[in-house]
Amino acid sequence: MTMSNNIVLGDNQYGKAEVRVVKVTRDTDRHQIEDLNVTSQLRGDFQAAHLQGDNAHVVATDTQKNTIYAFARDGIGSPEAFLLRLSEHFTSGFEWVTGGRWEAEAYTWDRIQAHGSEHDHSFVRKGQEVRTAVVVREGNTTHVISGLKDLTVLKTTQSGFVGYPRDRYTTLPETTDRILATDVSARWRYNTGLDAAGTDFNKSYEDIKALLLEGFTENYSHALQQTLFDMGKKVLEAHSEVDEIKFSMPNKHHFLVDLSPFGLDNPNEVFFAADRPYGLIEATVQRDNTTPAPAAWNGIAGFC
Amino acid sequence: MTMSNNIVLGDNQYGKAEVRVVKVTRDTDRHQIEDLNVTSQLRGDFQAAHLQGDNAHVVATDTQKNTIYAFARDGIGSPEAFLLRLSEHFTSGFEWVTGGRWEAEAYTWDRIQAHGSEHDHSFVRKGQEVRTAVVVREGNTTHVISGLKDLTVLKTTQSGFVGYPRDRYTTLPETTDRILATDVSARWRYNTGLDAAGTDFNKSYEDIKALLLEGFTENYSHALQQTLFDMGKKVLEAHSEVDEIKFSMPNKHHFLVDLSPFGLDNPNEVFFAADRPYGLIEATVQRDNTTPAPAAWNGIAGFC
Amino acid sequence: MTMSNNIVLGDNQYGKAEVRVVKVTRDTDRHQIEDLNVTSQLRGDFQAAHLQGDNAHVVATDTQKNTIYAFARDGIGSPEAFLLRLSEHFTSGFEWVTGGRWEAEAYTWDRIQAHGSEHDHSFVRKGQEVRTAVVVREGNTTHVISGLKDLTVLKTTQSGFVGYPRDRYTTLPETTDRILATDVSARWRYNTGLDAAGTDFNKSYEDIKALLLEGFTENYSHALQQTLFDMGKKVLEAHSEVDEIKFSMPNKHHFLVDLSPFGLDNPNEVFFAADRPYGLIEATVQRDNTTPAPAAWNGIAGFC
Amino acid sequence: MTMSNNIVLGDNQYGKAEVRVVKVTRDTDRHQIEDLNVTSQLRGDFQAAHLQGDNAHVVATDTQKNTIYAFARDGIGSPEAFLLRLSEHFTSGFEWVTGGRWEAEAYTWDRIQAHGSEHDHSFVRKGQEVRTAVVVREGNTTHVISGLKDLTVLKTTQSGFVGYPRDRYTTLPETTDRILATDVSARWRYNTGLDAAGTDFNKSYEDIKALLLEGFTENYSHALQQTLFDMGKKVLEAHSEVDEIKFSMPNKHHFLVDLSPFGLDNPNEVFFAADRPYGLIEATVQRDNTTPAPAAWNGIAGFC
Repeated sequence: MTMSNNIVLGDNQYGKAEVRVVKVTRDTDRHQIEDLNVTSQLRGDFQAAHLQGDNAHVVATDTQKNTIYAFARDGIGSPEAFLLRLSEHFTSGFEWVTGGRWEAEAYTWDRIQAHGSEHDHSFVRKGQEVRTAVVVREGNTTHVISGLKDLTVLKTTQSGFVGYPRDRYTTLPETTDRILATDVSARWRYNTGLDAAGTDFNKSYEDIKALLLEGFTENYSHALQQTLFDMGKKVLEAHSEVDEIKFSMPNKHHFLVDLSPFGLDNPNEVFFAADRPYGLIEATVQRDNTTPAPAAWNGIAGFC
Repeated sequence: MTMSNNIVLGDNQYGKAEVRVVKVTRDTDRHQIEDLNVTSQLRGDFQAAHLQGDNAHVVATDTQKNTIYAFARDGIGSPEAFLLRLSEHFTSGFEWVTGGRWEAEAYTWDRIQAHGSEHDHSFVRKGQEVRTAVVVREGNTTHVISGLKDLTVLKTTQSGFVGYPRDRYTTLPETTDRILATDVSARWRYNTGLDAAGTDFNKSYEDIKALLLEGFTENYSHALQQTLFDMGKKVLEAHSEVDEIKFSMPNKHHFLVDLSPFGLDNPNEVFFAADRPYGLIEATVQRDNTTPAPAAWNGIAGFC
Repeated sequence: MTMSNNIVLGDNQYGKAEVRVVKVTRDTDRHQIEDLNVTSQLRGDFQAAHLQGDNAHVVATDTQKNTIYAFARDGIGSPEAFLLRLSEHFTSGFEWVTGGRWEAEAYTWDRIQAHGSEHDHSFVRKGQEVRTAVVVREGNTTHVISGLKDLTVLKTTQSGFVGYPRDRYTTLPETTDRILATDVSARWRYNTGLDAAGTDFNKSYEDIKALLLEGFTENYSHALQQTLFDMGKKVLEAHSEVDEIKFSMPNKHHFLVDLSPFGLDNPNEVFFAADRPYGLIEATVQRDNTTPAPAAWNGIAGFC
Repeated sequence: MTMSNNIVLGDNQYGKAEVRVVKVTRDTDRHQIEDLNVTSQLRGDFQAAHLQGDNAHVVATDTQKNTIYAFARDGIGSPEAFLLRLSEHFTSGFEWVTGGRWEAEAYTWDRIQAHGSEHDHSFVRKGQEVRTAVVVREGNTTHVISGLKDLTVLKTTQSGFVGYPRDRYTTLPETTDRILATDVSARWRYNTGLDAAGTDFNKSYEDIKALLLEGFTENYSHALQQTLFDMGKKVLEAHSEVDEIKFSMPNKHHFLVDLSPFGLDNPNEVFFAADRPYGLIEATVQRDNTTPAPAAWNGIAGFC
């Protein structure tokens, strides 16, 4: 019983997760669609709820959900801008809410091609990658982290792996020509903070995605680590509004199939695409004068 | 004990499922990639294995896997053509193998745009839909069924639902303007059988996919059933090599959010995209002189 | 254009899928919980909806959902009995509804052990397997198919694979001691039809599950096919109310890891559990005087 | 171009993810099985690989995989002990490897009941929850975090939600009797560090799991936050070797279905189990004299 006196509440947050909001803009016959999965989580003084079951400070998660839908009525614009509006609302509206974390996934729709042109109100899910956004706020500090995931890329040559250390557990043969494949997950942190309202997040996103893809194609890859760094460097060189970019990229192994038992050669033509295990490469590329912001990254899975 | 004498083996098949084969064609610097997930299942006389554990007839599933990789060495061409080659091999190579079922999913890769042009050997997964193919063979009869799944489409208007019967459990209000959204799963059966070697399955596929998308955009939709039928009719009218097409399409509900408690209107602008439950519409569109082929469809999930 | 005259509607069905209903029985302080995922699909004359967009026959999928919840108010009893009630309601209530298909998954909850006894109203999901039920009705014919899936079992010895044919693509070495592992999916068809109201489906289910598990443990397995047949035979011998049982069982390969490069032996102790590809064994065990019922099985995925 | 000089490598780690190792202990006829999914990630000086593609320091992820299998030859014991052995090996074997992160999921198998007793070598996956373990090491500091996930629990009464603040977006009615359901994800950090070799992690795990379940059953729940705190407090009171425990628990909404349109009452008997959105409650329960260890928690998804 004595020991229990010492047990206290530590870090905590709560909210509504995965609010699926679809916003149609129909001011002309050419409709537009925005499709988000939004999570809102509040931080602040919620001690009474945990210790005494007193909910006087607990802004209901249902209220957070309602707020998301109500705010969507005025338009979304970009996932980042929408999350910034939510963060401003919740931290200014309830004095005990000192901060929080707002996150969104965004799904892209293309217009359907019909009778030779793009249709006005019919869409097909693009499906290539999922766009992500996170806003973290504590007091007067606001971080905006944008990103993407599930962008699956592959190059059929110009990749190898040699020169690694060998110990008693090393059996891997060296190769100078292999398939390199990965699902790109990347998150980049803007250095523009609350003034981010001035940033064109949609334009940044499209350009950074294009740079990541282009970066993947360039240069011979001596290691996925090297390709990752090149991709990140390319983004930071072109985007001064970004201070750091983190990657988590599986090395999706494609094993050359040994066809010799069947009397066949296999000059890098037939591969077995393996599921598990896979290599996993995670790294940060950053400006050397960056102020670290570990709190911004807290809770983002799979990034070191 | 007497009863056990009457217990016998019924329909059966076995094989290797989900063989992930990636074929790179590198005869020029401009590489090509084919990416399949292949399942091979054999039918025939396998009674001894089931009843006595005698494997003399059991072509090992490992052997079936090896055969898939070995055959890929000569190229894939189209999923359908590849499965037809496999079906010919297994039914002609082992006298007790009288038929079988071969299935594939195919994943599409686009070339990455880099420095203004499509890259020679770097690719990004398209992710829009998964192409499917099934070959079913029994004796001299061969069926080829092609298809696609996970093609997610949505129209923001030109859809309604009125005039349905009302009973004591009916509470749904009528609407003349709603979002219509679905994941198209479609499978079409070719009437060309073994001579299918002459069909350009890749060309058919691309054209049928385009017709399905276009069909979705056309006409006011009084019910998803009607849109489904229009889509199928469009395909059969244009493709005499197809005898029937089956659809399984969820009605992915997008509910208009009631914003009136917050003093806001909502003129079909803000929607909640629901997960479950969902409507599920399944139907066949066919030529009226079609010879039914139930055996061809056996084992395809989610189609009536 | 002439061709389009010939295009007609074939087999079709529609309804509401995955209605998640949780029923709490609280007539005493010791509550009981039933947890189902129900799909209702109607068959009959729905031609006008498909061809003209006339919904006069379209019992709304929303109405089907409401009916499920309303019927749950009177209790569920067993998934099979609940689906039979739904099938009776829809086929007797609307003259153009001639049949349909009703399906359920059921999730099992155990009482939580607290302070030495089973708690009255706190439960933990068992998670071991999912129970399934299907009722198919057309006119006066009703089929009941019960089953289970995701029952993952493994034996560490008493399994081998030898004596299979070898061709030029065969490289698999024989083994007389291997791990045998599978996810049991089984579906059994009752011969009791509409009179099924008299069958104790819950009792049958528990007993058949126990027999399947016990059957898996018995005998040396010369092939997964043999084990499958033994399991099915055991069920049919003990349950005269069942006419046939179908299995779809992956052979979940556990490969012995070659530790010899590290100077270690591996006497069947360390295994790599592979994901894909996997063997896939499907077969029916039945009484030899069974009247086949292919319509009952239509649309059940992954069973031949 | 000048800007590129400032771009550097930040935090990074790499390794092999999801190595599926199954260990059978067969020293007697009563076999035992251990089933893990292991991820190994190294930290240290890997700058040359990222910047110059020089792999001299890159212990191949394939080598890490081999090491896992080789170490399993000597037995696993507990996930935590196994990861500690791996961490010791990699940090002592390569001078530039200064630390790393090792993670495992463990899957539980029960013996199959056959002919009245537990079988010697046949098992069924328990499926209830997944056990987790993480070892983080940097220099001489080692953290051990154990946990579980996907432990789904539900209480049918003794839960309510009242007294929360109301703003213009609040529409939720108060309730004093509702279903409370969640998937428990919990992670607890041991204060025993490297000396953890002396801790009986398997015994701790079983006891903590039982306490979490028991804690869920106790007391009226005024908020999921309160129940979470009670569960954590119970663990810390009983386990002095644990310094803090973090939870991430969705509030899995079960909505009472309005049956009044059908002339039926619904006294907390029929519920709709919703998927998304869901509440999400995350909090830490800790001893007040705990030294924070943020580095230990880095990369664990979904915990604040």
